[in-house]
Amino acid sequence: MLTYTFSSGDGIPLYEQLTNFIKKDISDGTIAAGDKLPSKRTFAKHLGISTITIETAYQQLIAEGYITSVPKKGYFVSDILREFLSIPGADEKNIHTDLPSSVEPLRKSWLTDFSGNESDPDTFPFLIWAKLTREILAGEKDRLLTTSPGIGIQPLREAIASHLNAFRGMSVDPDHIVIGAGTEYLYGLLIQLLGFQSKYAVEDPGHRKIPMIYEQHGIRFSYLPLEEDRNIPEILQKKNVDILHISPSHHFPTGRVMPIRLRLSLLAWAKDKEERYIIEDDYDSEFRLVGQPIPSLQAIDPAGKVIYMNTFTKTLSSTIRISYMILPPKLMQRFREQLSFYSCTVSNFEQYTLAAFLSRGFFEKHLNRMRTYYHNKRDRIMKALLESPLAPVIHISEENAGLHFLMTIRTELSDDTLTKLCEEKGIRIMPLSSFYHDVRKANPHVFLVNYSSLSEEHLEDSIRIMAELLKSGEDN
Amino acid sequence: MLTYTFSSGDGIPLYEQLTNFIKKDISDGTIAAGDKLPSKRTFAKHLGISTITIETAYQQLIAEGYITSVPKKGYFVSDILREFLSIPGADEKNIHTDLPSSVEPLRKSWLTDFSGNESDPDTFPFLIWAKLTREILAGEKDRLLTTSPGIGIQPLREAIASHLNAFRGMSVDPDHIVIGAGTEYLYGLLIQLLGFQSKYAVEDPGHRKIPMIYEQHGIRFSYLPLEEDRNIPEILQKKNVDILHISPSHHFPTGRVMPIRLRLSLLAWAKDKEERYIIEDDYDSEFRLVGQPIPSLQAIDPAGKVIYMNTFTKTLSSTIRISYMILPPKLMQRFREQLSFYSCTVSNFEQYTLAAFLSRGFFEKHLNRMRTYYHNKRDRIMKALLESPLAPVIHISEENAGLHFLMTIRTELSDDTLTKLCEEKGIRIMPLSSFYHDVRKANPHVFLVNYSSLSEEHLEDSIRIMAELLKSGEDN
Repeated sequence: MLTYTFSSGDGIPLYEQLTNFIKKDISDGTIAAGDKLPSKRTFAKHLGISTITIETAYQQLIAEGYITSVPKKGYFVSDILREFLSIPGADEKNIHTDLPSSVEPLRKSWLTDFSGNESDPDTFPFLIWAKLTREILAGEKDRLLTTSPGIGIQPLREAIASHLNAFRGMSVDPDHIVIGAGTEYLYGLLIQLLGFQSKYAVEDPGHRKIPMIYEQHGIRFSYLPLEEDRNIPEILQKKNVDILHISPSHHFPTGRVMPIRLRLSLLAWAKDKEERYIIEDDYDSEFRLVGQPIPSLQAIDPAGKVIYMNTFTKTLSSTIRISYMILPPKLMQRFREQLSFYSCTVSNFEQYTLAAFLSRGFFEKHLNRMRTYYHNKRDRIMKALLESPLAPVIHISEENAGLHFLMTIRTELSDDTLTKLCEEKGIRIMPLSSFYHDVRKANPHVFLVNYSSLSEEHLEDSIRIMAELLKSGEDN
Repeated sequence: MLTYTFSSGDGIPLYEQLTNFIKKDISDGTIAAGDKLPSKRTFAKHLGISTITIETAYQQLIAEGYITSVPKKGYFVSDILREFLSIPGADEKNIHTDLPSSVEPLRKSWLTDFSGNESDPDTFPFLIWAKLTREILAGEKDRLLTTSPGIGIQPLREAIASHLNAFRGMSVDPDHIVIGAGTEYLYGLLIQLLGFQSKYAVEDPGHRKIPMIYEQHGIRFSYLPLEEDRNIPEILQKKNVDILHISPSHHFPTGRVMPIRLRLSLLAWAKDKEERYIIEDDYDSEFRLVGQPIPSLQAIDPAGKVIYMNTFTKTLSSTIRISYMILPPKLMQRFREQLSFYSCTVSNFEQYTLAAFLSRGFFEKHLNRMRTYYHNKRDRIMKALLESPLAPVIHISEENAGLHFLMTIRTELSDDTLTKLCEEKGIRIMPLSSFYHDVRKANPHVFLVNYSSLSEEHLEDSIRIMAELLKSGEDN
């Protein structure tokens, strides 16, 4: 009969030890398929342990499929295809994948980074957020633990609708708002909603992530050359575009505001066919520093053809993943039929915290504070540039757009060369051309100055270094 | 010259009022395209307001594209295609969509709901979670506001790896873990990773959401009839399946544990071709109430063919959206190349809270407590059933599986009829057949008893009512 020696020192229960012994014996062939195991009583006596322990071990082995129980006959070893237990090539699991041992982003510490587009962590209203979170946690537990509707909790959707009404003059039904963990996730939902057969168009230049998302979903899409404004509706027509993805209030990276003429002609284009829609990415309209915010396309769309998207990631912190979209009635209907089975991707705790942050006026105050903060920061950085040795060779444009401006540099150096020269000195600059799909269409020598998270600590030094680089580049 | 009357009572700044007046005049044709607007100084004098106000209004109109500035000539009205301003069919936006005014889930309050599969809100370790959240918020602010890597923060991935090692005997590299806001989101990422051309297979019966997700992504998939266990590798071969989606440790809804023989043969099937993978959905293995947890397929996969998935939504609360997957080395490499541009969908606050919850041993304690809780609850419910008037006509099976068991009812009534009769009495039951794609293959008269969120308040009444329904059903 099978004999095993149990150990008592390492805290593994007897039944588990027994299970493992028998498994091993089955795996290495000591016990063969079809073999009958000892009866529980006999085995218990033989091993000097209780029948309960044997019973428990046998049940575990049955559950995992190593043995079967035949009523009134006993326990038999299953045919477990032992040959599979030592699959050749078993070491492949440890193939070398050239991964760094840690995957925290490899963050080069730049002297100055003119390209970072994160929100400045220091500006996040941490104390208020923490206070509200504590209040929420101390409040009604039931509410927090009730599953959120797929589109997000009602109080948050209502707070967003009120905010959009007060701040953007938009009239929005809270039941047409869909909350999700970031716009990237919402784009994925939209692709499912609008169908994988639809043809998309994206702006060129534009945010680089957007075409990446469409590409990963196997979606057909075209690039719309921005400079051919007047012809865009014809281009859309010719390329059989169904879904147009744009940021009319504040184009990235040029900062351009789409003129009303083009807006209206795009709405007319969309209205022409049932399946045409416009995705309006309104990602940082809150940060227009001069004048009123630009009215959204959604607000002047009478025909229900605009899908409005915005995020709190830009306005609060990139570590808070809450975005939303507003669907026109027909698409909302379709969403309910097709996609309402999806769970909301934002946890209740954060949905309720954000709802309180909005409805109690903290968001508005935060935005006002941020506009002043960014206005001043922009002025300081422009002053630093315009009073520096760089001043004679640069031209600054689009300075009223949110969170970045463009700087044209008079130089013979190519964008690539200048970018690399700066990089060697620890200065990160991003040429406008790097946001173009069709690079030939890009104006060279134009660089982004993204000041949202720009550290001013070494700004003057960096500017001086750049001026020297440009000068020695010319001398050569 | 244009003359406007400004109001001072309603708090709208003068420049904004002026902007709106001019927009309206342009829109309704009072000012035509090409018309020159008054110079700032003249206009200011005429209206009795400052030139700054005129300047601000003009800048806003320029920004929105209503007018253009021609250097040294003045401000001219753009050609804004007025015809679009009153698009016919403008009222379509208000089409009736038959939506309820509120979209909170229409929750019928059942006398007893035998089908609910949410976690019991009362069991969520609310106080500890709240305490940890407060600690996290009081801790290092910098860390919380630093953007998370796309795959999630390192401390959480490390805590998950340790947990899996201690609890599931799995050896997992934290850098192969991807954190996301729910398994549904992770399935979407996997589809992008594995390609839209891959052919999938899902279990029949099985979780109904999984085929819905594949369907919405336009993925080809087959159903695998569960009762044809032995033939599954051949079926996969014949149907040209690339990706097999299964829950081997605890099949839903039957509760079956996949026998080791089949496990090994599936691993061998996957190993046969480069692009074959197995998605192992291990969603509630933590709640096996008797014996050890069943070893995961991932743990016995030597060839790197298993994608392991699990969630904290089941073990903590359905309102916390944190799940993870473990990718084998080759897929992790591909993930880095293709999908690392995606931001992590879980906010830092919750990632750090969960990391502390895991690493400080609270999760383990919670699971132990929950197993006892569910064990007792299951026993009470089974006792209530087996000591009730229902006892003579029911048979209970699979009672060691986590969080639900199956109850076969001896009756002439069809599953549909019995479900409807119960529903009329406020009792919700779910036949096993409703989880089948091919309903003909389902055993009739088998019902799910999901006790995770089952309220015991009216349990005895409900059981008595069901017994009466069955009796009168027979009498007819």
